[in-house]
Formats: sequence, C-alpha cells, structure tokens
Amino acid sequence: MTRKIAILGATGSVGQSTLDLVERSPERFEVVALTANRNVDALADAARRTGARLAVVADEGRYADLAAALSGTDCRAAAGEAALAEAATGEAELVMAAIVGCAGLVPTMAAVEAGKTVALANKEALVTAGSLMTDAARTSGATMLPVDSEHNAIFQCLAGSRSEDVSRLILTASGGPFRDWTRERMADATPAQAVAHPRWDMGAKISVDSATLMNKGLELIEAHHLFGLPSERIDIVVHPQSVVHSLVEFVDGSMLAQLGSADMRIPIAYTLAWPERMETPSERLSLADLGRLDFEDPDTERFPALRLTREALEQGGDAAILLNAANEIAVEAFLAGRIGFVEIAALVETALERASGTTPASIDAVIALDRETRTRVTDYIAKADADA
Amino acid sequence: MTRKIAILGATGSVGQSTLDLVERSPERFEVVALTANRNVDALADAARRTGARLAVVADEGRYADLAAALSGTDCRAAAGEAALAEAATGEAELVMAAIVGCAGLVPTMAAVEAGKTVALANKEALVTAGSLMTDAARTSGATMLPVDSEHNAIFQCLAGSRSEDVSRLILTASGGPFRDWTRERMADATPAQAVAHPRWDMGAKISVDSATLMNKGLELIEAHHLFGLPSERIDIVVHPQSVVHSLVEFVDGSMLAQLGSADMRIPIAYTLAWPERMETPSERLSLADLGRLDFEDPDTERFPALRLTREALEQGGDAAILLNAANEIAVEAFLAGRIGFVEIAALVETALERASGTTPASIDAVIALDRETRTRVTDYIAKADADA
Repeated sequence: MTRKIAILGATGSVGQSTLDLVERSPERFEVVALTANRNVDALADAARRTGARLAVVADEGRYADLAAALSGTDCRAAAGEAALAEAATGEAELVMAAIVGCAGLVPTMAAVEAGKTVALANKEALVTAGSLMTDAARTSGATMLPVDSEHNAIFQCLAGSRSEDVSRLILTASGGPFRDWTRERMADATPAQAVAHPRWDMGAKISVDSATLMNKGLELIEAHHLFGLPSERIDIVVHPQSVVHSLVEFVDGSMLAQLGSADMRIPIAYTLAWPERMETPSERLSLADLGRLDFEDPDTERFPALRLTREALEQGGDAAILLNAANEIAVEAFLAGRIGFVEIAALVETALERASGTTPASIDAVIALDRETRTRVTDYIAKADADA
Repeated sequence: MTRKIAILGATGSVGQSTLDLVERSPERFEVVALTANRNVDALADAARRTGARLAVVADEGRYADLAAALSGTDCRAAAGEAALAEAATGEAELVMAAIVGCAGLVPTMAAVEAGKTVALANKEALVTAGSLMTDAARTSGATMLPVDSEHNAIFQCLAGSRSEDVSRLILTASGGPFRDWTRERMADATPAQAVAHPRWDMGAKISVDSATLMNKGLELIEAHHLFGLPSERIDIVVHPQSVVHSLVEFVDGSMLAQLGSADMRIPIAYTLAWPERMETPSERLSLADLGRLDFEDPDTERFPALRLTREALEQGGDAAILLNAANEIAVEAFLAGRIGFVEIAALVETALERASGTTPASIDAVIALDRETRTRVTDYIAKADADA
C-alpha cells in the first residue's frame, strides 16, 4: 500500500529529512508533488530522484530555470501561488507542510481545507492562525499530525486516549544557552552566544527563540490549538538534555513521555507512517549511557517570553499574531546588532499592547496583520535608533 | 455503564487497593464476587460495604465464620476451590486476579479460560504457567491486563501499536538496597538489610527478591509471555528513583515511557478502567521537584539472578517453574537466617540443573512440579545444615 505524498518546502531542513525517509522506503510512498521557494536545482534533483509528477517553485521568476531542469522528465514544472495550492490539494493523501514562515500559511490552509492528512511543520500555521486551521480541519475532516518534536511527542503519548482522560500536557524545554545566566549577563549577550544552542543544530532565528524561550512559548500556543487544552493545563519544564521530548499526564496520575535522540527524522517518520511506524536510521537511545536526565522549573522572570506567550494565548484573538511578528522583527534586529538581547521581549510586550481581542476572519487577514505589525515594529526600532 | 467485577484475593494489598478505587467510583463498578484466603472479617466487611453477591473463603475451615459474618445480608457465603472458580468464572466481566502465590493459579486460569478481562496481579500465573495462560487466552478470547507497575507501564506505552512496530521493551529496576554493594559485602547481608527497600513498601519475600534483582528477572519472564518478545529484545535498566516504570522502543527509534508515583492504585486503576482511564487520589508527579532521574546498566556479576532468569527464559519448558520454586524456598531460608544472601542465587542455579525442557501440560502439572521442587530444595538446605 503506497501513500501519495506532497512535500511543500522540499528543499528546507524538514523537507530534506522527509525526502531522505521517503527515499529509504520507496515501497511506502509515491511522491506526487514537491515545492520549493527558490532553490530550483535541489527541487529538480529531488523530483528526478523520486519520480514526482509535479514540481512547483514559489518564485515565478524561477519558472524557466525549473522547466529547463526538468526537461526530458515526466515531471511537470509550475510556479506561483496557484501552483502551490495545486500541490497542496491535488492527488496527495498526505501533505508535508514544511514551508517556513507566513509563506506557508496559504498552501497549508489549502491542504487542511481539502481534508488531507497534513503533517504540520510550519509553526506559523498554529501560532498565527490556530483557530482558523483547527476550525477548517473540523469542517473538512483533515487530520493534523504535528512534526515539531515536542508536539509530536505529545501526539504519540495521546495515541488512543479519550480527551477527557487527559489532565495536563508538559512541554520540555532545553533551557537554551542562557539557562544559567542572570538577567544582567543576558543584557550583554551577543548574537554568537545566542545561536550556540546546546542540543540541536538550527537556524539563527530559531536559535535565538530558543535562547529567549520564545520558541517554547510559541509551542505552548501551538499545543493549545493542536490538543484543545487551556493554558493552565499546559506546563513547561526545563530539561537540559532534551531527551524527553514532552509528556502527558492523565487523570489517574499516570504520565506518558516520549524520548528520542535529537534527530528530526524520528518525529517526521511518525507523521509519515501514522498510524503505523516505519524504520528510521536514527541513533537509538541508551538510558544507561545517558546516565541522568535533569528537570527544573522555568524562570519566567529571566525569560519573560514565557509570560508573554501565555498572556497572548489567554487573551486570544489577534494577540499571538502580533507577538509572533514583533518577535521575528526583534530577533532580526538583535542578530543585526541593532538591539540588545533583553530588548527582544520588551519589543514583543510593547507590540502586544495593540492586541484587539478579535480573531482575523481569514488567512489573508492574518497575513495582512502580520505585515502591518512587522512594519510597525521595524519603524519603532528605526526611530529608537535615530533617537539614540 | 457499570462493569461487573470479581476481586480474587480481596483482602491482600492489591485487593485492598482495588476495593479502595472501586468504592471511590461506585458509578463505574458493580462488585459481584470477592474472595480471600482466610481473613473472614475483612472479607465480610468488604462484601457488606460493596454489596457483593458472593463471598468466598478459600480455607473451608472458615466457612462457618464467613456465613455467620454475612448473615442478614444478600451476600452468599461459600468456601473451597470450586467456589473460588465460581467467583472467577461467574457473572463478572472483569476479574482482578490478586491471589498471591501458586494458590492463584487455578482460579486465574479459570478466569482466562472463561474469556474474562483479567487484571493480572498474580506473578506465578505468567512466571510458572506463561505459555498455558497465553494459549488459553488466545483460545478463549480473554484479555490480560497487567497490574504489576512495570508491565502495566509497557502496556500503556504499547496502546494502539502494532506488534511489528515494537523493537524493544526496557524494564526499569530500582536496583534494590544493595545496588552499590560489592559481592563480598552482600555475602554478609542480613535479612533486615535486604528488606529495607528504598522505594516501595513491600512484604519481606518480594523485598528480598528486589535485593537479589530476582524480582526483575521474574518480570523479564512475565514480559516475554505478556508481550511476546524474545529475551534478547527485553532489556533491564537500573533506575534508582523508580519514577519511570518501564519503556518501549519502536522501530523508528522513538521511545515511550510511563511515569508515576509509587502508588499501586495507578496501575490498578488503569486495568479497572481500560480502555478508558479513571480518577485516582494518587499523588501527581512533579519532574521539577524530582530534579533528576538516573539510569545505569545492571551488573549481572553482582546480581546473578538476572543471568539465571534470562537463562531460564531462553531455555523455556519447566525451567521458570524450578527457578521460581527454588527461589521461594531459598528466600524463606535466608529470612530464617539459615543461608546467606548470595546462596539464594546459588540454590536457584543448582535447582535449574534439573530443567527438562518440557512444558507441563496443565496447571495441575505446574503445581505438582512446583511442590516437588520446593520439597527438594528444602531437603537440600536441611542436608547442608546438617552437614555444616
């Protein structure tokens, strides 16, 4: 029984890991569509290897290059937003939604509305449009399978449980590179220090989010939308070894935890094979070799992002959109050396003051508010620079 | 929807915890039968409180006392083996098989053969008659739900999984009171030192089994029968805090673990409510308060019981019966001050030399071989005493 799969964002990190797994198990998958933002060479290469029938580049200016790279194959080249939507809603049964950033919102929503099984690797989908996505999934009958290691862990722990049997979700956080730093020391933190994540090899933006714990706060919001629990029943615990990827507590006092090595292919494979499992080449854990696992409460004083994300979640409406957009611009400014580390959260807090309590009615409205917020925060930083 | 339950061994530790849970959730359960070995007062008391319709005392000499204690109630008093079997096979849908020792074999087998859902708290059922029990369950369609915290943990982690997706089971062991002791020091260990279990409050016999790690070895055999995995795919890891009760590794490299406080009501509640869950008054875990969890490989040199049980499992046939019987007699002798701590394993190893490789064909044959082995090991110890 092969499964028809579309990979949106096939040339990114999650997309490449997905291709790796799919190509290792050709008996399980039939690749029907692949998309990329601009990287035509990698896209055409993957399309040739997998025998994909449709390859889409988001950037219409790269269409000619893609068509040329695919000449002589059975793979059709296409470009632009409508073609992305076609990849997301066509013959695929399973859609890996791995486009990074707000660019992923429209095709991810298209897949959800088409009732697909959607492996969700795009964070913005749930952070900025959680209610829209889950409402659409309920209407269409789409299944959303979380790729993120923490949410995937919870999804694994919940397998087969009734929602009324769940009492609490516990997200684990590595604590980031500044776990033991004082607030004073953090004020002087450099971008180089912030991106030195202790466990996972990640991009600069997400590494800074891991240092502020904003990443964990955003996961709190995602967990709320994915699993339907209110803020007060989703806890965060710091676990520096990042071996336990998250836990679920049940009404009987029992807890289930998912553990694994730091290899995104494990949660990705779970979404690809669900409700079965498939082999991966990932390193096996040895608890005896690990020796010990540590846990501690997070410090919301030193890491205000945890407080801000919880406030945004409890406030609802458009708050998480403002928070996410302001954070992206603030992190960029920090990486560019224009603001200090502790100012990231301060800028987010200022942006949150404009939350209206109203949920945007469409993905387009979400994207518009996202853009508007980015512009406002960018201007705010420029003005502060000029004033200084 | 109430569930009709029979509790075999209602006055023991597991039986009392079961009654506690059942009485806290009267909307879920209808107690139809209760049994006890000799404790007529506790049995009659429980029967009155729960409105049980049948109360059985195994010891026929206590029948008159039971009948007197139940006079004026709607509960019928009965005694002896046939009445025990009636309790196990009557109108109950769920049978809690919590009779301790080989006395539990016949009624547990009766419940399995009757196709009941059997919550299995009797260790001997799987250690000495594992193949007979699982064959009978396959034939009758009975469901066996393990009560023991380690096997219950694995059962929870497996929920909904296909057997071909499981790669390994990992049983956790506290390591017992002699975890850090040298073999020389163990040679002088006293019964008082051996029964001082660091985590669970248990009887003397099982505490000594925890000190020798024989308990974990017996659980290895049970896990094999319950979950159908061969010895080489069942590992043991020492975990002194006993918070992680066991784990399952899947073919994708993912692991699931069950965690909980040291309260048998958690695994018992899981078997009572399965496939749902029910509230318990058990203390909730706080990982941050625990702070750390440690893991290490077990030392089969210092704890030969681990090697002996694995050998018995791999050998199959009647080996586990000999091992279990010899261990019981050896532990009794150790508690009586007649043999040293390290001689327990030595006696078991000697008893295992007589393993025939043949599986007894019936529960009666299992019980006969158990008795024969106990007599032989008892005589052997007496002779060694006399020789000394």
